[in-house]
Amino acid sequence: MAETGKREVDFADRNETDAAKAKRLKNEANSDEENRDQSASANPLFGFKTTTVLRDSAREKNMFIHGKLNDQEAVIILEKTPIREDTLLEIFNGSRLKLDMRNDIYSTYQLQPPAHLNEIKTTVVCPATEKHVKKYLRQETYLVQESGEDYRSITLPYIQSQSFSVQWVYNILEKKAEAERIVYEDPDQDVGFVLLPDFKWDQKQLDDLHLIAIVHRRDIKSLRDLTALHLPLLTNIRKKGEESILKRYGVAVSKLRVYLHYQPSYYHFHIHFTALSYEAPGCGVEHAHLLSDVIQNLQADSQYYHSRSLSFPLRADQGLLSKFKDAGKL
Amino acid sequence: MAETGKREVDFADRNETDAAKAKRLKNEANSDEENRDQSASANPLFGFKTTTVLRDSAREKNMFIHGKLNDQEAVIILEKTPIREDTLLEIFNGSRLKLDMRNDIYSTYQLQPPAHLNEIKTTVVCPATEKHVKKYLRQETYLVQESGEDYRSITLPYIQSQSFSVQWVYNILEKKAEAERIVYEDPDQDVGFVLLPDFKWDQKQLDDLHLIAIVHRRDIKSLRDLTALHLPLLTNIRKKGEESILKRYGVAVSKLRVYLHYQPSYYHFHIHFTALSYEAPGCGVEHAHLLSDVIQNLQADSQYYHSRSLSFPLRADQGLLSKFKDAGKL
Repeated sequence: MAETGKREVDFADRNETDAAKAKRLKNEANSDEENRDQSASANPLFGFKTTTVLRDSAREKNMFIHGKLNDQEAVIILEKTPIREDTLLEIFNGSRLKLDMRNDIYSTYQLQPPAHLNEIKTTVVCPATEKHVKKYLRQETYLVQESGEDYRSITLPYIQSQSFSVQWVYNILEKKAEAERIVYEDPDQDVGFVLLPDFKWDQKQLDDLHLIAIVHRRDIKSLRDLTALHLPLLTNIRKKGEESILKRYGVAVSKLRVYLHYQPSYYHFHIHFTALSYEAPGCGVEHAHLLSDVIQNLQADSQYYHSRSLSFPLRADQGLLSKFKDAGKL
Repeated sequence: MAETGKREVDFADRNETDAAKAKRLKNEANSDEENRDQSASANPLFGFKTTTVLRDSAREKNMFIHGKLNDQEAVIILEKTPIREDTLLEIFNGSRLKLDMRNDIYSTYQLQPPAHLNEIKTTVVCPATEKHVKKYLRQETYLVQESGEDYRSITLPYIQSQSFSVQWVYNILEKKAEAERIVYEDPDQDVGFVLLPDFKWDQKQLDDLHLIAIVHRRDIKSLRDLTALHLPLLTNIRKKGEESILKRYGVAVSKLRVYLHYQPSYYHFHIHFTALSYEAPGCGVEHAHLLSDVIQNLQADSQYYHSRSLSFPLRADQGLLSKFKDAGKL
């Protein structure tokens, strides 16, 4: 269980009845509201004018807003606060509820708790620069369906026209950089690879374990290039990758998610190993492909990834999205 | 930018000054609080006694609580609601703030908005069974690989031995419950379905849009039962589901994630429609299958889901995991 902060509560009389306690809590909350001005500063956000919402997350209940505060550029970050176990008694006894729906044993409500139990964490950056604004701006994402033919006529020419540098990948393979981070290597130039922690994993805990297997061969850009001829490579990565992670970190196969991205973030073939309990960005079904599924599909049909349609997300600022729009595919 | 639902606001005088508007909004909010009892039911959660917190997420701002309500076992799910763009003006002008910290251009506050803008979505399961309690208790998760043969020898007998009630599903299909929530229906008993918001979506914003298409026919438990004979059903759901979501909510296909779960959480066939930008729980690659992929696979091979191995996560307390362990599969 995640630990929640403890808050001291003075109970005037530990023998009070539940009804009396609820009444007392309600009075304290009302008094809390009336007295808010005494502890709260005058509203410093009064008159803030929203220019645009930079991003928001329904899952994380936050919002990043660019606007103007007292004629200065500002970014305001609002985030709902976690629910604390030590506030539950007050919430259940001191809130107002409105029924939304009832079906069999299930019912849903909108609940309004006492205000002091339901604050919004607010961060103000003011004056904010253009860098602040860009930092927080999320791009809209679109789901694109790419047929085998679309790949050859739209995506492949686009990839080839861009100079996507993978020099940093070659540096790793050639031991010019990050050599000390390598967990395992199979040096075979056909089926071999280098396994090392992803740079976003600080390795301080196993909860967010994340390693990458980068293949030695340089002729596979992505999933689209794979055929049954690559099965020895794929099964080698799976087998030796899983064995070395078990050996180094004690994490078993049943606790791992092993997958690749399409589109990948760089066009040198690599595979991700993440902790199953870690909802790593990019492990969503529209972006990730389990290695075990890829192997099965190629065993059944060598041309599987040559011919089928693949879905993947593209951000508004990605050039490839414009190509699909121009081709009337969106 | 993720689209947010529009809410109508009556402005008494479109020429009022900002100060006058803020004052009016504040009065409306106070009046809103005083009048809450008239629209809110008497507190149905009064006297709820917490037994234990089953799980909570600081990231998602939710909490699952097991306890007793009116002498009955109950599970209560509390979740903070997303922040809505159309409420920002009221939040900025009508809230109370307390300064936490100021450092250079950064300052942080605790903000108390008007209560009606900061509700907690509450779900009550009462009476709750031991199955409900177990379902929500956070458990360690393991990835299981189930061959076609494993499905027939382990999983199917297990499903058939359990009495997983789907009465609430039949209530919806027979219009005994939630009939007013139905967004679209195709009443055909072979290829038809009912489309309605998932009960976890409060429909106040489109950011976390989540609808379920529940098929009318009762002979499909899961992905494993699908063959090419079900293609008319699947393409009908896709086509009409996407059309009605576009019509009702203005959300286009390129902004949707349409998928099913394996294993599903209940064994009456249903499909999820979620906002692409919403990282819905259960949209991970090890649990979700895009409907477009399922259709393609069945078009190529009617027996695809009969014969292939499927991976899925199982929690430590799920009986099916024990079955796989006993069979030496883990």
